[in-house]
Amino acid sequence: MSAITLIGTGNMARTIGTRAVAGGNTVEVMGRDQSKADDLAKSLGGAATPGKWGAVPTGDIVITALLYDGVVPVVTEFGDALAGKVIIDISNPFNATFDGLAHREETSIAQEAAKVAPPGAKVVKAFNTIFRNVLEKGRPTVFMAADDAQAKADVAAFVRSLGLRPLDVGGLKMAHWLEGMGVVTVGLASNGIGHGDFSLGVNEFST
Amino acid sequence: MSAITLIGTGNMARTIGTRAVAGGNTVEVMGRDQSKADDLAKSLGGAATPGKWGAVPTGDIVITALLYDGVVPVVTEFGDALAGKVIIDISNPFNATFDGLAHREETSIAQEAAKVAPPGAKVVKAFNTIFRNVLEKGRPTVFMAADDAQAKADVAAFVRSLGLRPLDVGGLKMAHWLEGMGVVTVGLASNGIGHGDFSLGVNEFST
Repeated sequence: MSAITLIGTGNMARTIGTRAVAGGNTVEVMGRDQSKADDLAKSLGGAATPGKWGAVPTGDIVITALLYDGVVPVVTEFGDALAGKVIIDISNPFNATFDGLAHREETSIAQEAAKVAPPGAKVVKAFNTIFRNVLEKGRPTVFMAADDAQAKADVAAFVRSLGLRPLDVGGLKMAHWLEGMGVVTVGLASNGIGHGDFSLGVNEFST
Repeated sequence: MSAITLIGTGNMARTIGTRAVAGGNTVEVMGRDQSKADDLAKSLGGAATPGKWGAVPTGDIVITALLYDGVVPVVTEFGDALAGKVIIDISNPFNATFDGLAHREETSIAQEAAKVAPPGAKVVKAFNTIFRNVLEKGRPTVFMAADDAQAKADVAAFVRSLGLRPLDVGGLKMAHWLEGMGVVTVGLASNGIGHGDFSLGVNEFST
């Protein structure tokens, strides 16, 4: 069981929160609009509680369930409140045409968030390759990238509590390529598959 | 049935050639070292024949089975001999530490090859996310990116002749992100899975 704090009250926060509660985790919900945090925590039921925006999260794992351009500003705003926390960045910084990233440099929202995170905070990129409807109903693979082994182990345990398979792709710089896999996922939905009821995963072969 | 020309006589040429012959395709093999082309064509058997380096390929689909830094020079060297051909770039331009791409710009070997390809040639990125041992023995998904719809349809038909599933991820600029998926594949083998008997694929869910 993990203690999770969701920063954000939108659809992704609701979906992850629902699975997290079902998986036996405690869930705190923080929103800039306190009434939305209260409402989401209430509707999640279980061990979900509302938190106060900007306070020290009760969760050891903090999930920034925000649009991509909100992640770095909110990590900056929370500042030392996030010291020592594992921060999961789930965002997809798509460009305006959804066929590339908003940043042209070889970076990622996760790497940029790590630059502004307080001492001891560890940023993990995860969940971004999964459409929300699949996270609601399916059993997608959760790819993750981070520099800190303990942070990845903590996130892996949380992912397993959701009944999902975590797969470590390497260090935090790999977050750039996971964001690229988000772009490929959208490309597949538009071109190769024609719907969004899938996720990128791994097929194993015996030799 | 497709008519394929392999440019290159290494391990990937052998693996793709073996599957192509088994799938009922005609296969021409070109190598800078003619004796290697002769030997590979002979060992492939079936409808495989050696070609002459730099000549107009007999195949409608030309696969550059070369190390990444050989692709653009060889497409340049072949020049007008490749006019009107569908060219499949299968390369992975890994950096020295295999955790990123050799080029820092948002481009790909496929896009760079398209810039030097002759009139009417269409470049398709495909097969690069698949380890050779998986292409030998498994049933990997073949992701592909290209700007030309007919070229993608031709490559899809060839992929199906191999008993594999082609999946269109979008235009040729997506080749950059497929190259990134090559990086993720190596990262998974090193970190998340611990062996190379897998490939990135798609898991579909019913809703």
